[in-house]
Amino acid sequence: MTERRYDPTRNEWVTFATHRQDRTYKPKADFCPLCPTKSGARKTEIDRENFEIVTFDNRFPAFSPEAPEPGVQMTELYPVAPANGRCEVVVYSDDHHLTFSDLTSARVRLLVDVWVDRWKILGSEDSIAYVMPFENKGEEVGTTLSHPHGQIYGYPYIPPVPLRELTAAQSYYAEHRRCVECDVIQGELKAGSRIVFENDSVVAWVPFWARYPYEVHVAPKVHLPNLASLSVPLRRNFADALLHVAKNYDLLFGFSLPYIMGFHQSPTDGDARWNDFSHLHVEFTPPNRSADKLKYLAGSESAGGAFISDVAPESAAALLRERWELAND
Amino acid sequence: MTERRYDPTRNEWVTFATHRQDRTYKPKADFCPLCPTKSGARKTEIDRENFEIVTFDNRFPAFSPEAPEPGVQMTELYPVAPANGRCEVVVYSDDHHLTFSDLTSARVRLLVDVWVDRWKILGSEDSIAYVMPFENKGEEVGTTLSHPHGQIYGYPYIPPVPLRELTAAQSYYAEHRRCVECDVIQGELKAGSRIVFENDSVVAWVPFWARYPYEVHVAPKVHLPNLASLSVPLRRNFADALLHVAKNYDLLFGFSLPYIMGFHQSPTDGDARWNDFSHLHVEFTPPNRSADKLKYLAGSESAGGAFISDVAPESAAALLRERWELAND
Repeated sequence: MTERRYDPTRNEWVTFATHRQDRTYKPKADFCPLCPTKSGARKTEIDRENFEIVTFDNRFPAFSPEAPEPGVQMTELYPVAPANGRCEVVVYSDDHHLTFSDLTSARVRLLVDVWVDRWKILGSEDSIAYVMPFENKGEEVGTTLSHPHGQIYGYPYIPPVPLRELTAAQSYYAEHRRCVECDVIQGELKAGSRIVFENDSVVAWVPFWARYPYEVHVAPKVHLPNLASLSVPLRRNFADALLHVAKNYDLLFGFSLPYIMGFHQSPTDGDARWNDFSHLHVEFTPPNRSADKLKYLAGSESAGGAFISDVAPESAAALLRERWELAND
Repeated sequence: MTERRYDPTRNEWVTFATHRQDRTYKPKADFCPLCPTKSGARKTEIDRENFEIVTFDNRFPAFSPEAPEPGVQMTELYPVAPANGRCEVVVYSDDHHLTFSDLTSARVRLLVDVWVDRWKILGSEDSIAYVMPFENKGEEVGTTLSHPHGQIYGYPYIPPVPLRELTAAQSYYAEHRRCVECDVIQGELKAGSRIVFENDSVVAWVPFWARYPYEVHVAPKVHLPNLASLSVPLRRNFADALLHVAKNYDLLFGFSLPYIMGFHQSPTDGDARWNDFSHLHVEFTPPNRSADKLKYLAGSESAGGAFISDVAPESAAALLRERWELAND
């Protein structure tokens, strides 16, 4: 069963891909499907002896170009649709034991090029309305393969969280004729207290309303709607900011910090109006609320969507800056 | 720091309660604050030697009646507000080792009365716009106290998930002059394939669009907007349905299944228009996708809000029914 079903009580799509129940689950390092194929050894997903970055279609995709027709009958109350789209894997390195934060600056710069390319290619497919590169790092967020990698989903609809952002940004734009994210960034640069990293063109900060204790957002300072709008010099600065955040996280509690990292940007549904108020940014959300405790999405967050945080965003930003300064003095 | 901060990029409130970082965390059974106070022993939160059900204010509340003024200056971009409201604990039994599914039918019936009473009392407070009883069960969903208990949050605003439901239900009502949940329930009763339990007035089913593999909703068959609208005979049937679902869950994989359980109903902000299209229901969302694997909210769900499930709702409902029949034959 592979299909999308519509929830008319929340106006959201939910996707079913029951073949994913059999996906590869925490294989031993010897059987890592993302490692290079060693000469004479069994083939992995990547039939090369070494590589820098590789992208390929996920073997257990939620969305695929030739998705079957839904197995249930659509009704007026219950719309259904094929799970068209793409699920790609992006392997960051051929070294099984690295994480994103261990990559060289040059490799992250190359990774930005890969994200730009894949965003353009997937976004140009008619069936794909939204392209989201993301990374799940660490068993705490459910990662089943430890080899350094991310994913790119090409959705056949605008997912609920980006849609809420776009809806809010559209209202704000209608009232102020400005992008809300631009105003947030200018305000943060002026306030300074929540800034974690800054270079000429890119800034990283803990949001005023951080849902996760050590949440950090990364965005270009000027209004750019998506990955494809990053100029070549800006790509270098963007890569530097992402790498800074990942390295800073590992200094926070003295271990490789788990996180979810996701790109938010303009849809690829062909409607250019999004570009005025969609501002490219990356959200890092680590699950930790301290070195040994996780923030769970329990009743208030899960059933209500109402986040309660026990860390002040200003304290989180100060601690991240302090850890960086201590390590780099 | 205790305050609400507004996220203008999603139009949602996030609450900060930094004193909660010190809340009681997995105490040994001897030091359980929800156990009765034994004669001559140190006092727990409950100064009685035995009890049936007790409710009291959470010692580490996210929302409280005398919330302080916010510590930061409000700006046009960043609204802030006091975290007014209530956080209550509802202890289901004086027996530390039970779970909700172990309670007697009479105790669950009494618990429904408690929920009705607290909903009315908290809902009548001017500062409270929405009252949500919920339960976090199991360490897998972050429960820090194992004594059988739930919580009731009285929010000073309508939380994001209920608000999305109400917004969707309002549109549906405007178009069809019917409650969407009523139509869902009638459709499910007719289809039958996703029903888990049914009595004269209450039904439990796996939603057509279940976000979690073994998600189950429980609702009265007729249109009732909130807990206070449950008639006395209906309370018995409602209690029976909730208890059935909890017992059925424990039969699913042969162990006490963790879950989040939350009530969805009409707001208490004084606007009676909600009542036409707000339909009382309870959502159970267990984190398990199989006996030994959890469903994590990773990149697609967390960054995108786009749920991907690998269990067909019809299979989940069939398995729950089968387990029940096997155990009760």
